[in-house]
Amino acid sequence: MKIALAQINPTVGDIAGNAKKILAWIARAKDQGADVVVFPEMALTGYPPEDLLHKPAFIAANRTALTQLSRTITGITAVVGFVDSKDGHLFNAAAVIKNKRISSVYHKMLLPNYGVFDEKRYFSPGKKLLVITVKGVKIGIMICEDMWDNDGPIFAYRRNNIHALLVLNASPYHQGKIREREKLVAAQAKRAGGHIVYVNAVGGQDELVFDGYSMVADSAGTIVARAPAFTESLLFTDLVSQSTIAPLLKPQQEVYEALVCGLRDYVHKNGFKDVVIGLSGGIDSALVATLAVDALGKECVHGVFLPTRYSANASREDAEQLAHRLGIDFMVIPIDNLFTAYTSLLEPIFSGMKPNITEENLQARIRGTILMALSNKFNWLLLTTGNKSEMSTGYATLYGDMAGGFAVLKDVPKMLVYALSAYRNTLAADIPRRTISKAPTAELRLNQKDSDSLPPYPVLDKILEEYIEKDRSPSDIIRKGIAAKIVKKTARLVDGSEYKRRQSPPGVKITPKAFGKDRRMPITNRYVSS
Amino acid sequence: MKIALAQINPTVGDIAGNAKKILAWIARAKDQGADVVVFPEMALTGYPPEDLLHKPAFIAANRTALTQLSRTITGITAVVGFVDSKDGHLFNAAAVIKNKRISSVYHKMLLPNYGVFDEKRYFSPGKKLLVITVKGVKIGIMICEDMWDNDGPIFAYRRNNIHALLVLNASPYHQGKIREREKLVAAQAKRAGGHIVYVNAVGGQDELVFDGYSMVADSAGTIVARAPAFTESLLFTDLVSQSTIAPLLKPQQEVYEALVCGLRDYVHKNGFKDVVIGLSGGIDSALVATLAVDALGKECVHGVFLPTRYSANASREDAEQLAHRLGIDFMVIPIDNLFTAYTSLLEPIFSGMKPNITEENLQARIRGTILMALSNKFNWLLLTTGNKSEMSTGYATLYGDMAGGFAVLKDVPKMLVYALSAYRNTLAADIPRRTISKAPTAELRLNQKDSDSLPPYPVLDKILEEYIEKDRSPSDIIRKGIAAKIVKKTARLVDGSEYKRRQSPPGVKITPKAFGKDRRMPITNRYVSS
Repeated sequence: MKIALAQINPTVGDIAGNAKKILAWIARAKDQGADVVVFPEMALTGYPPEDLLHKPAFIAANRTALTQLSRTITGITAVVGFVDSKDGHLFNAAAVIKNKRISSVYHKMLLPNYGVFDEKRYFSPGKKLLVITVKGVKIGIMICEDMWDNDGPIFAYRRNNIHALLVLNASPYHQGKIREREKLVAAQAKRAGGHIVYVNAVGGQDELVFDGYSMVADSAGTIVARAPAFTESLLFTDLVSQSTIAPLLKPQQEVYEALVCGLRDYVHKNGFKDVVIGLSGGIDSALVATLAVDALGKECVHGVFLPTRYSANASREDAEQLAHRLGIDFMVIPIDNLFTAYTSLLEPIFSGMKPNITEENLQARIRGTILMALSNKFNWLLLTTGNKSEMSTGYATLYGDMAGGFAVLKDVPKMLVYALSAYRNTLAADIPRRTISKAPTAELRLNQKDSDSLPPYPVLDKILEEYIEKDRSPSDIIRKGIAAKIVKKTARLVDGSEYKRRQSPPGVKITPKAFGKDRRMPITNRYVSS
Repeated sequence: MKIALAQINPTVGDIAGNAKKILAWIARAKDQGADVVVFPEMALTGYPPEDLLHKPAFIAANRTALTQLSRTITGITAVVGFVDSKDGHLFNAAAVIKNKRISSVYHKMLLPNYGVFDEKRYFSPGKKLLVITVKGVKIGIMICEDMWDNDGPIFAYRRNNIHALLVLNASPYHQGKIREREKLVAAQAKRAGGHIVYVNAVGGQDELVFDGYSMVADSAGTIVARAPAFTESLLFTDLVSQSTIAPLLKPQQEVYEALVCGLRDYVHKNGFKDVVIGLSGGIDSALVATLAVDALGKECVHGVFLPTRYSANASREDAEQLAHRLGIDFMVIPIDNLFTAYTSLLEPIFSGMKPNITEENLQARIRGTILMALSNKFNWLLLTTGNKSEMSTGYATLYGDMAGGFAVLKDVPKMLVYALSAYRNTLAADIPRRTISKAPTAELRLNQKDSDSLPPYPVLDKILEEYIEKDRSPSDIIRKGIAAKIVKKTARLVDGSEYKRRQSPPGVKITPKAFGKDRRMPITNRYVSS
């Protein structure tokens, strides 16, 4: 008895392409002697297809593709995630295919409707277990959330004396989630009294990245097989002996690879090849550049330095050195004359008023406009370089440095930007030392420092984690020993910049709570947390 | 027996302010001899508070406010919408308050999780009816969705022989929804065998506008009382005789008032007073200007004409005449020199490449940048002027004409823009005739017309209604007699511009399916509708 875990990277909506990939992987599994091959949750449609599920033609296309696919399958049992429909209801489903037909279908019972998930918007819950027998081995089937509830189908399956449970998943990544998941898989294998064969999707889809790390746990709760993260992989288990166990990535490498995977898939799945990045000489844009090179190849990355009167020579040197070390295209487009042209044009209207944030934003917006012009002319996707600490506090200019198609670091707090940069430099010292060591600055006025406007980043990031990820109130956070004034100011900045985040590009979720679907806040909101 | 329907306009998160308002309206109802006063769904927190509901301190604050409020209430029974919590579960709830205490609480049973609604993300369903007796009259309580299901609590209440059902609502507006709602209220009153006292919220909250139109239907299914739309109102019923019946608005007036209400509340509830609008001489910006004047007052509206070499004299005349007729501030800021400055700066990089969409977008982005500079300097909220037909097809420049805090016409198709402009001109002929009669143009290149890039608007809007609002496939639409080439191109434009919409400002939902929470599409999406 040999089961293959097909950890594939489907593309949302690409039903024909996904079907073709599924067939190819079935062939590979068969070639290697598998009796059963299991694919991730909704592998045929990609996950999550969101409101594509409201299109009857989309549902029909996925069912037709499943039927066609089934007609070619012999000599192996394939378990394929798709969307089933019955009596006007949709189901997140798994088809069991053998001998050229769909022999049975399982409907997911527990539908997640929290965090990034909206499954109750689309699906009805399944009501029946599905047990199949292959070569005398009794195997139960579950989908993702079904496994997370201790009172869920696990117990019912146990009563059926199954030997193994196949679990189809599209479980999104966040830092360290694999440890949580492995603990659960191990515990549930014990509860079920059989092996758990956990197949996860891999790859990026808008703000989500699926990390893979498919695995098998035996009924003693031992992990006996594990696929690698962030790459497609075919893993085997015989439900008896230990198989390949890919090592877990170190924490910073794990996040770095998640960002690379999410970025690569966003760019490629949306039909782009090249990206353009505004390089400031600072650490955020430097990290985005290394991520882009690692994701897309250096020949596809274009760096632009856009200096004004406030740009230090050191900044240009650092940007240029970075580009040189990475071997990427590098342009310098000075924007000071444009800045002067704008301020002169506005001078009669602004007369007598002091320069303020308006003039700072102007510079950022000129940069955004130039970068978008390059994006439009050369079909380079513009990468936004802001990090989560900035996105949280609104320390960014809408239509300025926030302009772009993908915000790689949107969910990466500043202190983690430092840690990832340090990690990346252990592989190749591409980020200039001064970029890492200097005090962060937006260089939008004379001698500006981030610390003029924001608390020191170690303190800020701590507050943000408590306030955003854990939904703690300012008074809770103050009780942990952080100065009240700083905590309250930070909460005010977060609450007051929702309108900016609503217009920000997508980015890769890497924390337990990212901006976007994960945290749905009203813009119009007079609640003052205390 | 006298029941007051308190159709109020709460603000999301403003628990103290909403509590104060509720108390003031209770006093008014009491002064006018009411025995019972009913408020809208979640009047205490405002609706929908979205992920504020994940903050334990927010839930606690709403409960504390309810308790404090209850202590002051005597001589009347008040039914107040709030958020209840019990054993770690949240409930969309109604408190019955009399004699200075909360005498009972109802939990909403049916939780909508479709369209703009996410209630299963937050709430657990209630399981118990609540019947109260006031002056010998048996009254049942329901909340919004509870009333929409024929198999819902209605039947159970009927078995309890209630005389009336109080229904607390926060039912968002779309065109003509009131007719749908009245039909239902009338039918359910017959089913319940008693009066239905339907209290709706009024006012704007981000993309939603609640239209009010609170009403009473008797058990014969006759509407015997109706409050006006889009304004706070205290309506009375004695459950016997007919009361005030506010007239229904005519279709165009209804949409116009919805936009005015949504715009006014977005601006004021977010702490703004003034708005700035780029006036092009075209119909979209003209309509936005009249809406702004009607919502905020002419002294709070600032119009700016930003000509380039491609702007016709007629455009300037029309913009200026509009501003003059409306009596609003008007500025002219020519941007052609800036356009030249950008193209010269980029010339070495673009050398040998023909002008294309890049140069068109440049002009739009210069305008966006100037308008945002005015917004930043004077604290004027920038209103975006694009309509739904443009937002659907991506016929708009990200960070250019799409820049702004609120996109009033985001859900208004172009043909409806015409109809609303014609309607507004019947009140006062403020929009110049030429603005209405001329062929729409973005004026971003010589002799450009919208019809160079888009199907004629009557055809386009028809396709968009079918494709977006009704989720029909291109082949369905082609079958209705529209040319295949046009339908397929339109579908492709819609699918391909999801990334733009994701970064667009909020606007008022006025159709059954608006962009935003109502239509959640992946950006990365290879599904090609056929």
